[in-house]
Amino acid sequence: MKSQIVTFLIKCPDQKGLVAKITSFFYEQGFNIVSCQQYVNSIEDTYFMRVRLNAEGTVISKEDLEKNFLKLATPLQFNWSVNYGDKKQNVAIMVSHTSHNLYDLLERAKEGRLDCNVKMIISNHNKLRHIAEMFNVPYYYLPVTKETKLEQEVQVKELLDSNNVDLVIMARYMQILSSEFINHYPERIINIHHSFLPAFQGANPYKKAYERGVKLIGATAHYATEDLDEGPIIEQDVKPVTHESTPTTLKRIGADIEKLVLARAVKNHLNNQIIVSGNRAIVFPEAGE
Amino acid sequence: MKSQIVTFLIKCPDQKGLVAKITSFFYEQGFNIVSCQQYVNSIEDTYFMRVRLNAEGTVISKEDLEKNFLKLATPLQFNWSVNYGDKKQNVAIMVSHTSHNLYDLLERAKEGRLDCNVKMIISNHNKLRHIAEMFNVPYYYLPVTKETKLEQEVQVKELLDSNNVDLVIMARYMQILSSEFINHYPERIINIHHSFLPAFQGANPYKKAYERGVKLIGATAHYATEDLDEGPIIEQDVKPVTHESTPTTLKRIGADIEKLVLARAVKNHLNNQIIVSGNRAIVFPEAGE
Amino acid sequence: MKSQIVTFLIKCPDQKGLVAKITSFFYEQGFNIVSCQQYVNSIEDTYFMRVRLNAEGTVISKEDLEKNFLKLATPLQFNWSVNYGDKKQNVAIMVSHTSHNLYDLLERAKEGRLDCNVKMIISNHNKLRHIAEMFNVPYYYLPVTKETKLEQEVQVKELLDSNNVDLVIMARYMQILSSEFINHYPERIINIHHSFLPAFQGANPYKKAYERGVKLIGATAHYATEDLDEGPIIEQDVKPVTHESTPTTLKRIGADIEKLVLARAVKNHLNNQIIVSGNRAIVFPEAGE
Amino acid sequence: MKSQIVTFLIKCPDQKGLVAKITSFFYEQGFNIVSCQQYVNSIEDTYFMRVRLNAEGTVISKEDLEKNFLKLATPLQFNWSVNYGDKKQNVAIMVSHTSHNLYDLLERAKEGRLDCNVKMIISNHNKLRHIAEMFNVPYYYLPVTKETKLEQEVQVKELLDSNNVDLVIMARYMQILSSEFINHYPERIINIHHSFLPAFQGANPYKKAYERGVKLIGATAHYATEDLDEGPIIEQDVKPVTHESTPTTLKRIGADIEKLVLARAVKNHLNNQIIVSGNRAIVFPEAGE
Repeated sequence: MKSQIVTFLIKCPDQKGLVAKITSFFYEQGFNIVSCQQYVNSIEDTYFMRVRLNAEGTVISKEDLEKNFLKLATPLQFNWSVNYGDKKQNVAIMVSHTSHNLYDLLERAKEGRLDCNVKMIISNHNKLRHIAEMFNVPYYYLPVTKETKLEQEVQVKELLDSNNVDLVIMARYMQILSSEFINHYPERIINIHHSFLPAFQGANPYKKAYERGVKLIGATAHYATEDLDEGPIIEQDVKPVTHESTPTTLKRIGADIEKLVLARAVKNHLNNQIIVSGNRAIVFPEAGE
Repeated sequence: MKSQIVTFLIKCPDQKGLVAKITSFFYEQGFNIVSCQQYVNSIEDTYFMRVRLNAEGTVISKEDLEKNFLKLATPLQFNWSVNYGDKKQNVAIMVSHTSHNLYDLLERAKEGRLDCNVKMIISNHNKLRHIAEMFNVPYYYLPVTKETKLEQEVQVKELLDSNNVDLVIMARYMQILSSEFINHYPERIINIHHSFLPAFQGANPYKKAYERGVKLIGATAHYATEDLDEGPIIEQDVKPVTHESTPTTLKRIGADIEKLVLARAVKNHLNNQIIVSGNRAIVFPEAGE
Repeated sequence: MKSQIVTFLIKCPDQKGLVAKITSFFYEQGFNIVSCQQYVNSIEDTYFMRVRLNAEGTVISKEDLEKNFLKLATPLQFNWSVNYGDKKQNVAIMVSHTSHNLYDLLERAKEGRLDCNVKMIISNHNKLRHIAEMFNVPYYYLPVTKETKLEQEVQVKELLDSNNVDLVIMARYMQILSSEFINHYPERIINIHHSFLPAFQGANPYKKAYERGVKLIGATAHYATEDLDEGPIIEQDVKPVTHESTPTTLKRIGADIEKLVLARAVKNHLNNQIIVSGNRAIVFPEAGE
Repeated sequence: MKSQIVTFLIKCPDQKGLVAKITSFFYEQGFNIVSCQQYVNSIEDTYFMRVRLNAEGTVISKEDLEKNFLKLATPLQFNWSVNYGDKKQNVAIMVSHTSHNLYDLLERAKEGRLDCNVKMIISNHNKLRHIAEMFNVPYYYLPVTKETKLEQEVQVKELLDSNNVDLVIMARYMQILSSEFINHYPERIINIHHSFLPAFQGANPYKKAYERGVKLIGATAHYATEDLDEGPIIEQDVKPVTHESTPTTLKRIGADIEKLVLARAVKNHLNNQIIVSGNRAIVFPEAGE
């Protein structure tokens, strides 16, 4: 393999000797272990590992590496994935009216601060097309009504699949997707919700936050699942607010939180830092990356 | 009056000229206005003011001041209160098992960082008596069962009222008080809840936080009302956590948040910084105090 | 005057009756006081006020208002300014190599989240021209060497003055401006420094932060003065970091702090929330704006 | 060994295979690896590891374990230490006038939130003796003048050494210790400085913070070294402040930051989470502890 970082993500029943066995395996295959992060969930007796390898100087092929790895993985009941770091992931961004997350993601991708190709923007409105044009990204306007919902989802799916989209980012896409759609992209749809979940699920969280008189507002990025706003949480953040804030000012303050939270969640995903377990997301911190 | 700070809290329908009228009134009565903070809720067309006066060199009596003030207040429909800063408030702390908030409040009161007299500690358990003894504060052990609940509340009320308690602090008192009890002390009971409300209302918030996989945990201090965990929020804060946290470590991390949030809320109350309006607490910041 | 918000900023020696006198004056001139914020610096016996007026329904002209105001201001030794909220401020952005602040400011201005006209971008490099073109803003490439420094500053000044620029934003402009230049725009140049000042003044703050092993990094927006990185601080913020961070990762983490800190500082300036006093910036919070 | 957690801290030149070799060693010795954290400083080509072992069911003696470990450690040039988790560390707290850190540490130790024995409090003033008495901890009043400084340090040293003190906590001890004293306890003295270092080194940081007009204040816990306020930083935190704050209010706001920062640093030290390298402290996060 070429000089590149290979990342393995592993989940398995906990048992003695796992870290020794796994790291010895990669050492014997000729890799230098750049970082090795583990987490044991002692409540569920489950073991999680993220290991990053420097492939420089190795001669083994991907096929052989995986074949050899299976000999280790099968008896130990690994649930695992590998990313060879040799191609950028393809990303689609779905939006409706609000522009701040879209600008932020496009800027980061363009300037190399997010390691991905933004293949397209899909929207149920035409309002943000000018931003797509500024950044030279295809913009697909696919309006949706109650009646055309399933039909529109089929169009979206065709666009995503024909473009080999690896990750869908719902950057304030204000439509509820069908279970069928969501289950087609497991752990591949990241949504930003404009509240610190589980507070204020559903519509109009800033209005609800004003009415409840909270002293901080927040945002949550999570994988979309069938249950609205209940998927595994990747990132959350908050800012203090005061009684002075109206729903309108909360919206403005919240926009800056949403941008950072979504961008960090997407980066963590693209960077192979996440293992989902049940409804919880294990998010390994960057390791000197 | 002696050299002291007098604080007026005013709430009224918004209209032109309020700040001019109010501040002119106090100026004409001979006071120096130390600080004057206002807030207009434009959604409900309501005006709020906190004004702090230096009484030094004034000759007017409290009675005359209030009589004169009424001439201004009545036509403008003021809902108002005044604190003359001439005596410390009496405080009772209610606890069950957990000690961190209790230590923190007692230390702050003893060292003059909270301006109050802690008259007593009331508990449904005997477990924290040693702390009361360290700080030389009376400790009343009033156990409670489903059957004796109302009876116990009567005992608590007698203790509070016979000691002229101004403020009750529920520092992790793990009993639900009756509506009757709570309504007896409107805006005079502060509770600390160990989550960022409205998330995780009710019991076991740290366990729920673990299960939901949130990336931050928090605490909320609020006035107790009939509706459990739904009273006006005074203070909130959060800390980031990771997937590594178990319910036990969340509890430990949360303890430090709870202490700061409750202490700040109590300080704001004792310092006359709060006006409650519906279910929202207007909390004026300190003004060079 | 039309329906608009007029903002007065006042600084004067402290004395009894100021808030009553000032608010009564505006009430008598027919204005509704939307918000009135004051601050007394008791160490220097100085009084500061920011008062926002709703001009709707008033018939007085600006000239008459100011003539009348002077009768109040002169005997009380006011140092004051007024903004009638009737025209957007003109802004110039100066940059060198780094793009994140530039994108952020341009996006906010374009989407109406910063209330200003970005008249131009000035740079000593050609590198960021593509961003100016995306946002349709004139880009002036004015290279500078040790020898041509003063000459270049003259060119910059001509550009700024001929375009009636009100505010210069140094969004990571990596040149030290001459005292002569800076003094030409007092309290009209905002600089972003990529550390929590006064720590790590001067060059390479992220490298210094790595070497010192700090556990948080920050950014500071301040008015530029003759003394490098020592002008009045408008906004600061920090993020926690760990030993894992290299100077390169600190730079990336810091970029997001810089963006928010600079944007908030510019907003506070454009929104007339700041009074400078000596080397300290009094920054009034937004008042329901 | 009994059922207990054994912690190894290792620092060595980076090279291929380290994690595999180390974890395999412990696996072969019969230990279960509870957590294994590594950090590679790629600038200095240095490798750091913290590994926690469950000793339950092992039969090997400490002596044999260390003898065997040396066969691995010597050729790989390990700089290492081990803590067997079988006895609490002895701690001395040094104070002068301020009480908040002292209360906080004593409460945490008493309630089991800090895993240590507080053997004594040493002070150059008699002022805080009542707190020592509340918590039943010996209080040594050792006044100091310019003339008696060295003599007093000898007394302090005798107290510390005769009581087998493992860690000295300078909880706002307002004396500069001699190099000789400090070098006697390398990486065993933790100091709290009341600013976000390197800003405001030396005396009166809150006064300096006021004068500089900073918008956030902080605290820093670090190992004491010969160079005042320049030792390896363990923990830092900050809180936002406004222009309203005087040096007095900054002191009060800062007290709460100091308490949390010092307590966290002490916990990290007692919990064997820290490896010092040059002037930087590698602080491993808790791993499900």
